[in-house]
Amino acid sequence: MDERVREHAEVLVDWSARVEPGDDVVVGVAEGAHELAVAVVEKLGDVGANVVTTYDSAEASRAYLRAHDGDFGAGDHELALYEHADVVLRLGGGRNTTALADVDGDTRGAYSRARTDLREARMATDWVSTVHPTRSLAQQAGMALEEYREFVYDAVLRDWEALAERMAEMKAILDEGSEVRLVTERDGRPDTDVTMSVDGRTAVNSAASVAYDSHNLPSGEVFTAPYGTEGEVFFDVPMTINSTRVRGVRLTFEDGEVVDYAAEQGAAAVEDVLGTDAGARRLGELGIGMNRGIDRVTDNILFDEKMGDTVHMALGRAYDANLPEGESGNDSAVHVDMITDVSADSRLEVDGEVVQRDGTFRFEG
Amino acid sequence: MDERVREHAEVLVDWSARVEPGDDVVVGVAEGAHELAVAVVEKLGDVGANVVTTYDSAEASRAYLRAHDGDFGAGDHELALYEHADVVLRLGGGRNTTALADVDGDTRGAYSRARTDLREARMATDWVSTVHPTRSLAQQAGMALEEYREFVYDAVLRDWEALAERMAEMKAILDEGSEVRLVTERDGRPDTDVTMSVDGRTAVNSAASVAYDSHNLPSGEVFTAPYGTEGEVFFDVPMTINSTRVRGVRLTFEDGEVVDYAAEQGAAAVEDVLGTDAGARRLGELGIGMNRGIDRVTDNILFDEKMGDTVHMALGRAYDANLPEGESGNDSAVHVDMITDVSADSRLEVDGEVVQRDGTFRFEG
Repeated sequence: MDERVREHAEVLVDWSARVEPGDDVVVGVAEGAHELAVAVVEKLGDVGANVVTTYDSAEASRAYLRAHDGDFGAGDHELALYEHADVVLRLGGGRNTTALADVDGDTRGAYSRARTDLREARMATDWVSTVHPTRSLAQQAGMALEEYREFVYDAVLRDWEALAERMAEMKAILDEGSEVRLVTERDGRPDTDVTMSVDGRTAVNSAASVAYDSHNLPSGEVFTAPYGTEGEVFFDVPMTINSTRVRGVRLTFEDGEVVDYAAEQGAAAVEDVLGTDAGARRLGELGIGMNRGIDRVTDNILFDEKMGDTVHMALGRAYDANLPEGESGNDSAVHVDMITDVSADSRLEVDGEVVQRDGTFRFEG
Repeated sequence: MDERVREHAEVLVDWSARVEPGDDVVVGVAEGAHELAVAVVEKLGDVGANVVTTYDSAEASRAYLRAHDGDFGAGDHELALYEHADVVLRLGGGRNTTALADVDGDTRGAYSRARTDLREARMATDWVSTVHPTRSLAQQAGMALEEYREFVYDAVLRDWEALAERMAEMKAILDEGSEVRLVTERDGRPDTDVTMSVDGRTAVNSAASVAYDSHNLPSGEVFTAPYGTEGEVFFDVPMTINSTRVRGVRLTFEDGEVVDYAAEQGAAAVEDVLGTDAGARRLGELGIGMNRGIDRVTDNILFDEKMGDTVHMALGRAYDANLPEGESGNDSAVHVDMITDVSADSRLEVDGEVVQRDGTFRFEG
């Protein structure tokens, strides 16, 4: 076994999920994540946790969803499993990122709605999602397997404590600030110019650990839940939304709500998202990518949104961790991230002061 | 997909487990059983059951067991899963039948003991074990993969109702009888001569369906829970116990308990089993193989013990179905089957009357 697989497992169990002896842990294993599963379960044995491994097979899900009449139930047994779990580790890494392509949207929607309680139970645990580098993900990224492995481990095997300290500076600025403005130029002309309020909201220093309210490995972003968005924003990083390739999305906001949109490619997918519910037309997240171990777009949101020199915004659901205690924010059924490159011709301002210019943060000197 | 994989899934879900709409089903998937898992989950979607798939990876188990300090707990989450399940389907078929070879016996024993409640909860469901034909199992059987597939489907895709009728005759004889005696000769000299009581016990007509208290697919045996075993028995069919090759086991019983043992090969594995607990030194099962679709030894107990012309006995745990209502029998943490060939130079007697001589049953005429 590549020693980095074991290191990945160690970061996941120790740093990210903070697993303790006697914890009841569910490990979800995607079809291609066997090797990482072995390393993670080995580490959990070492810690003295109790483990259930679930088989998260996209091909099995497809077969189930297509055979079912659509009147989905939710298993008491599955609910009981997650309600009694302390930690849920999801090891992604399938064998085909489009394995569910021929399951229709209504079926997916019905299945997802039937599983609301299950999802809540899982999200009430110390859950962490990560991925094992598989051929399928390498292909989605346009990379060779070995090259993709380097990419994944560069992103995952970081000095997370050092990054958390750097990100704490960005968090402090957002927590103390009231208004965020992002301005970019393209070909010498104004492109994005958008403002939003973050007053009263708490930013998350997403340092890939439940100790930081952060549930992704890799992570490396600071995010908050904005409101009152005004202006225009252009997302130039390509992405896949519900299996559709989307590129060059422009959104126009008034009073916090999208009033106009356009896309160079995949406009119908954007329209579908916006039509889901009222929350889908408002932002649920503003995120600032700070993981410089992620140096390129790989068409996988787990990595893309954390990339250094990018800012992303999500239409839809907000995270509770950003909201004042007990307050509920955007409760949309969707959460769709879109990313913009800020490496050049850009500035991010908080209350009129420039925090990041052309990708360089003020506190980086 | 080979159409027989779908037929296998149908027999498993409809005939064996009798799954109904809304049932909460756990499907355990061994490393090599993906294809069968897809077919089974598809069938469960069609029926309208709720499904959790667990990943039963031998390599992950090995890693966990070797890393753990041996003071095993049992997860509340796993217990809750099985306590809330209606049906548990275990799809065997790994990639290496000796994947756990370097886990020591003490560790296995401690782990097994810690999981007693989990096992009870699982066995309180309508559980069924089957296997998908993998290269590893073909190799263990000394067969090519295609040849092994034929073997497995010959054993599994049978007229189960017809076999159930034939086995009912054997069950009636055991239910009415008090004492069973097995005598075999080898090279013209007495080899096995063992007696045991079955008085008050109920034999199971194991027709591969929970409707018959039968939990294996394939099945095709009649078994009961004997006690008061006396004498000597020689098991000439080679087998694998906890990844160790075992051959030619001789057990000597007094007062129901093993007082002496020997093995031509793998004696240490037999010793480990006998040392687990008090129940491991007593029989939990006497079984009579009646599936003539299984025509050879393949070093897989699921098949071998059902083979026509064989009798097997298990050290350890007894099945509740054999016991008077509310009575608990052998509650050992282990259940290890050993098989003896009765195709020649043998007779099986019940209360002094020969029921099977040289493999032919009295009622077969």
